Amino acid sequence: MTEHTNKQFSAELENVRSSFLQMGGLVEAMIGEAMNVLVNKEVTLADTVHDREKEVNRLEVEIDERIGLLIARNQPTAVDLRLLLSVSKMLTDMERCGDEADKIAKMARRMHEAGGQYIPAVELRHISTQVTNMIRNVLDAFAREDPIHAATVVRNDKEVDKEWKASLRHLITYMMEDPRTISRSIDLIFIARSLERIGDHAKNMAERVIYMVHGDDVRHIGVKATERVARGEPLVKQGD
Amino acid sequence: MTEHTNKQFSAELENVRSSFLQMGGLVEAMIGEAMNVLVNKEVTLADTVHDREKEVNRLEVEIDERIGLLIARNQPTAVDLRLLLSVSKMLTDMERCGDEADKIAKMARRMHEAGGQYIPAVELRHISTQVTNMIRNVLDAFAREDPIHAATVVRNDKEVDKEWKASLRHLITYMMEDPRTISRSIDLIFIARSLERIGDHAKNMAERVIYMVHGDDVRHIGVKATERVARGEPLVKQGD
Repeated sequence: MTEHTNKQFSAELENVRSSFLQMGGLVEAMIGEAMNVLVNKEVTLADTVHDREKEVNRLEVEIDERIGLLIARNQPTAVDLRLLLSVSKMLTDMERCGDEADKIAKMARRMHEAGGQYIPAVELRHISTQVTNMIRNVLDAFAREDPIHAATVVRNDKEVDKEWKASLRHLITYMMEDPRTISRSIDLIFIARSLERIGDHAKNMAERVIYMVHGDDVRHIGVKATERVARGEPLVKQGD
Repeated sequence: MTEHTNKQFSAELENVRSSFLQMGGLVEAMIGEAMNVLVNKEVTLADTVHDREKEVNRLEVEIDERIGLLIARNQPTAVDLRLLLSVSKMLTDMERCGDEADKIAKMARRMHEAGGQYIPAVELRHISTQVTNMIRNVLDAFAREDPIHAATVVRNDKEVDKEWKASLRHLITYMMEDPRTISRSIDLIFIARSLERIGDHAKNMAERVIYMVHGDDVRHIGVKATERVARGEPLVKQGD
């Protein structure tokens, strides 16, 4: 590569990176807004979330196209190639987080528009705080190329799974005690499920950040092995 | 590229392709087996599904590693690069289909082990037939590089979404009529949801097949526009 091509390539990599961070920032905002529809009955925010979702979709396609062109034209290897392949995969996860936020906002609006009584949503609020933090942390880990920070997101996902199961049990008990709440509770179960899915996607992205930095694929090896790889220890495949 | 390198590269592309088809065949089998756990109470099949899921995970990581190496070493462009980038994305969707099948098998086994009465699962059986066909069709479309065939999978997903909503309404009615069925019905709702997710993943993969052949990204443009692109008409961005 000439120095000029090299400089331009670096600028384009940086552009991919910053566009992905921008997309992630949108998704992070969407989760907060969707929860505001649910918790504070700010139903008009559902339209805001939906508009942002379109923008997230647009960014997904646009960034992916740039990645394809950069690989074809500049034929990057090693860490540059891993960055591009990682972002390409992370785009899919990030876009699906946006979808989930959009679903939450729509369901929450429908619940409020149908009227009906208050349902305690404290667990949902707690899970949503956790998964919002996971999204923020995976974006930080990506921006700083910090695999250790990424590994904390992988660990957090275990916590979110536990809380999702607890909130499911709680909502089932609630329905059984008062079958009139069945319809509403099903909606809340789907909202909880969407939040849990966002946690899964954040975990997937965190695994890609570790791959990007170390070149080791930590999918399906379990949290402890992931943490070891994140610290720079050799990859030993085993679940935990 | 020398002729030798070229031949070897072609063989390696073919190898990626056939490994992905093998992975897809496993997932297709898993869905059938998971439904057999549910419908025919063949609870021991849940272990088979779980073993296959491990194999699917292994294939995901292995194929993705080969794709990364091929891109780095051979610096493919155009259709070869699109094949590799498409398979890399499809791997993620296919692996998640395997996860969903594993979840279905586990939930179905738990339901049978808990005893309890029969619940009509005719709609679930119908949805599972549809999504199994979608997986088979997307694998065919991929193997034959047939974008028109892939577009039928995108259209089928609309049908599956409708059936999922119908089965959800049905199960909610069931719960309301007899609150003792709440727990079981929630399990069935999750099973239906997992099937619907498999349909979504099949749709995503079908979109990648169209990209692979035509180089146009048809995500988020709607079914009709997707069908036009599949027929080779120019990409015009609009939802439908």
